[in-house]
Amino acid sequence: MSNISPLVIGLAGFGTVGSGLAEVLRLNQDLIRARIGRDIRIKTVLVRDLKKPRTYALPEGATVTVNPDDLSNDPEIDILVELMGGKDLACDLITDALHAGKNIVTANKALLAEKGTELFNLAAEKNLGLAFEASVCGAIPILQVLRESLAGNKISSLMGILNGTSNYILSEMSEKGISFETALKEAQAKGYAEADPTFDIEGVDAAHKLTLLIRIAFGVDYPFKQLGTQGISEVSTEDIAFARELGYRIKLLGQARCLNGKIEAGVYPTLVSKNMQIASTDGVFNAVHVEGNAAGPVFMHGRGAGGLATASAVLGDILEIARCGKPNNTGFMTQYLPAAEIMPSDEAISQHYLHLMVSDKPGVLRDLAGALAEQGVSVAQAIQKEQGHSHVPIVFLTHEAPAKSINNALALIQAKNLLGHRPVHYRVLK
Amino acid sequence: MSNISPLVIGLAGFGTVGSGLAEVLRLNQDLIRARIGRDIRIKTVLVRDLKKPRTYALPEGATVTVNPDDLSNDPEIDILVELMGGKDLACDLITDALHAGKNIVTANKALLAEKGTELFNLAAEKNLGLAFEASVCGAIPILQVLRESLAGNKISSLMGILNGTSNYILSEMSEKGISFETALKEAQAKGYAEADPTFDIEGVDAAHKLTLLIRIAFGVDYPFKQLGTQGISEVSTEDIAFARELGYRIKLLGQARCLNGKIEAGVYPTLVSKNMQIASTDGVFNAVHVEGNAAGPVFMHGRGAGGLATASAVLGDILEIARCGKPNNTGFMTQYLPAAEIMPSDEAISQHYLHLMVSDKPGVLRDLAGALAEQGVSVAQAIQKEQGHSHVPIVFLTHEAPAKSINNALALIQAKNLLGHRPVHYRVLK
Repeated sequence: MSNISPLVIGLAGFGTVGSGLAEVLRLNQDLIRARIGRDIRIKTVLVRDLKKPRTYALPEGATVTVNPDDLSNDPEIDILVELMGGKDLACDLITDALHAGKNIVTANKALLAEKGTELFNLAAEKNLGLAFEASVCGAIPILQVLRESLAGNKISSLMGILNGTSNYILSEMSEKGISFETALKEAQAKGYAEADPTFDIEGVDAAHKLTLLIRIAFGVDYPFKQLGTQGISEVSTEDIAFARELGYRIKLLGQARCLNGKIEAGVYPTLVSKNMQIASTDGVFNAVHVEGNAAGPVFMHGRGAGGLATASAVLGDILEIARCGKPNNTGFMTQYLPAAEIMPSDEAISQHYLHLMVSDKPGVLRDLAGALAEQGVSVAQAIQKEQGHSHVPIVFLTHEAPAKSINNALALIQAKNLLGHRPVHYRVLK
Repeated sequence: MSNISPLVIGLAGFGTVGSGLAEVLRLNQDLIRARIGRDIRIKTVLVRDLKKPRTYALPEGATVTVNPDDLSNDPEIDILVELMGGKDLACDLITDALHAGKNIVTANKALLAEKGTELFNLAAEKNLGLAFEASVCGAIPILQVLRESLAGNKISSLMGILNGTSNYILSEMSEKGISFETALKEAQAKGYAEADPTFDIEGVDAAHKLTLLIRIAFGVDYPFKQLGTQGISEVSTEDIAFARELGYRIKLLGQARCLNGKIEAGVYPTLVSKNMQIASTDGVFNAVHVEGNAAGPVFMHGRGAGGLATASAVLGDILEIARCGKPNNTGFMTQYLPAAEIMPSDEAISQHYLHLMVSDKPGVLRDLAGALAEQGVSVAQAIQKEQGHSHVPIVFLTHEAPAKSINNALALIQAKNLLGHRPVHYRVLK
């Protein structure tokens, strides 16, 4: 088969994932030839700085450049693989490459979540592939599963551990009883968290991925900016311990549900029953649970990051373009997805976890329970512990109620000046 | 889009899955139209007996027949969906339909595992699709994931809970401490096991599925008859309890590994560490764990049976044929897979679980340990319990060793007449 010309890749970015891709192409060359009947060749590698010492050897025979035009203007290049990250440069490069008729494979969740619509529209106009399996959950092929294998299912809900860094931190806090700050430092020391960890710990990275998951699971364009996002930096060891006592784990979940055609979605610290598979997804792993109206529950678990694991997803996309040719960017006939109808998060119904610090005086429990009852919220479990302090913690796990009712009850409670601290309020998902 | 002609299905079999498919097509008609731009219409339904009362309503507008030719000879039918089960009739029907130029979607694992090579070759010759996602693990899209998403990975191992009935029985035995016979009766009463449960409990069904998984994971044709298969009918509550004491669960695993190009595979009761996700796959659920050389570990979990869940997989295959057109039956360029090089199971290296009933007299433990040591097998954990009987159980969990060494040691031990009963020997997988 060596007389068939190779599939030629222009690779933008040569960090962990870029060099991982080069490594997998080298390791699995025979397999790839058996899969698609030709070799895959990285012709040109775009880097930011030619002088920066490379941690990894460049692919054999590849040219290095700092000029993006060397990728987009090279007619020999079939596919642009964008693994450089960042938004502006990457956006320009992908735009130019689409104009030049190249298919795109990218792992750039931030770019696609924030500016994806324009890029997807351009790809549709040019009838080109814009594949992004590697953007969401690393090696877990959740996008293809949603777009193809489960294509015959209406998805009612999905929830996932979409960020390994924050999951590692929560796992360590839960297992060792250490504080958020200590666990973060440990994650940084191990290379699981960046020096500036904001994107990971504040849920931004998970929200980028959730935006893309919603796109594929429900076939709608959901604006990233409208996604409610809350990180884990305020999750306390106390709440982790209370949750455990109630039979739950606290996880940073990206979740989306479709109710009567409306999407309710967000990224929040969430209590999940310890019996759920997502509750035992620990460390840097990612996991996704989807619920289809035919398949029922489908759960997938794997590495969410790392050079080789992410390269596995990049290569899956490259092979699909090589094999099928016809782009299937949306999973639908239309390549222009309609805007999502959004359900405000406070209309969402779930169980709720409340941790209130109250003055240790008569009638407080009555007042709290009264405020909840007034909003039609009933309590499933409660914990009150004796303490020698002026304020004591009371924890409620409610039955199902709209978030709005909880918020109203909390406003009522705060108005009565019953609380020593800002209340902690998390959703509970089953 | 209603002016585009529908995709026309000939459906063979109208039991749980066939009627599930009709139901999903009805429920998700709008979604399907959005996915492929046309409707899917079941034109003709083949049944065995026209007079048998139907539990489910026939698809609207469909004709019922007992004549297979009404499917294979009808030029209007695009895809034959074979959900009738059995081997001879189904084989003839699929053969005729391929000759008539129709793509095939089937859930018939027994047929494909035992006579698949001929059918796949015929499909290749005719350049037609022969899709069988629904044959393996119901709603879990493991075949597409292996064939496409993880196509860039060399798979080093896969293991799965491939049969829900036997998993339900083992789960109940483990949870409630009941015997195999009691658990089987319970499974039959709940409709999870057939009146004649042989295929499920003796590992035959799991072996059919494993044959197909090996085909797709490793790109080789592995003869079903050469697959070592052992069922669960001899798994005892004692062994389940000993395994638990050692930190393990006993599961009926289908497993395959690729070592230096050779495939070592089989279906056996196996000890798996309680920390593995496959160990907490309980009840009628199925799960598969695969290990790719780029992706690392990928775990999937879902419903392995049931009308709607299996129909989800059937529909995924139908939609793929509608979308892509090009058949990708093997996941490789060649549609004629090479024969597997088979590694004899006794060369396989793993940890081992041994449960021996020995005479309660001095020197027995020394003799047992001596026989193991003579074969180079070292012991990782041992349990010996005092009992007021002439024979006492001794349990060993060995370090890694070839199965051959264990078998030799057991032969030695049996030759010395040390055992009161036939030894219990299971593999331990991590």
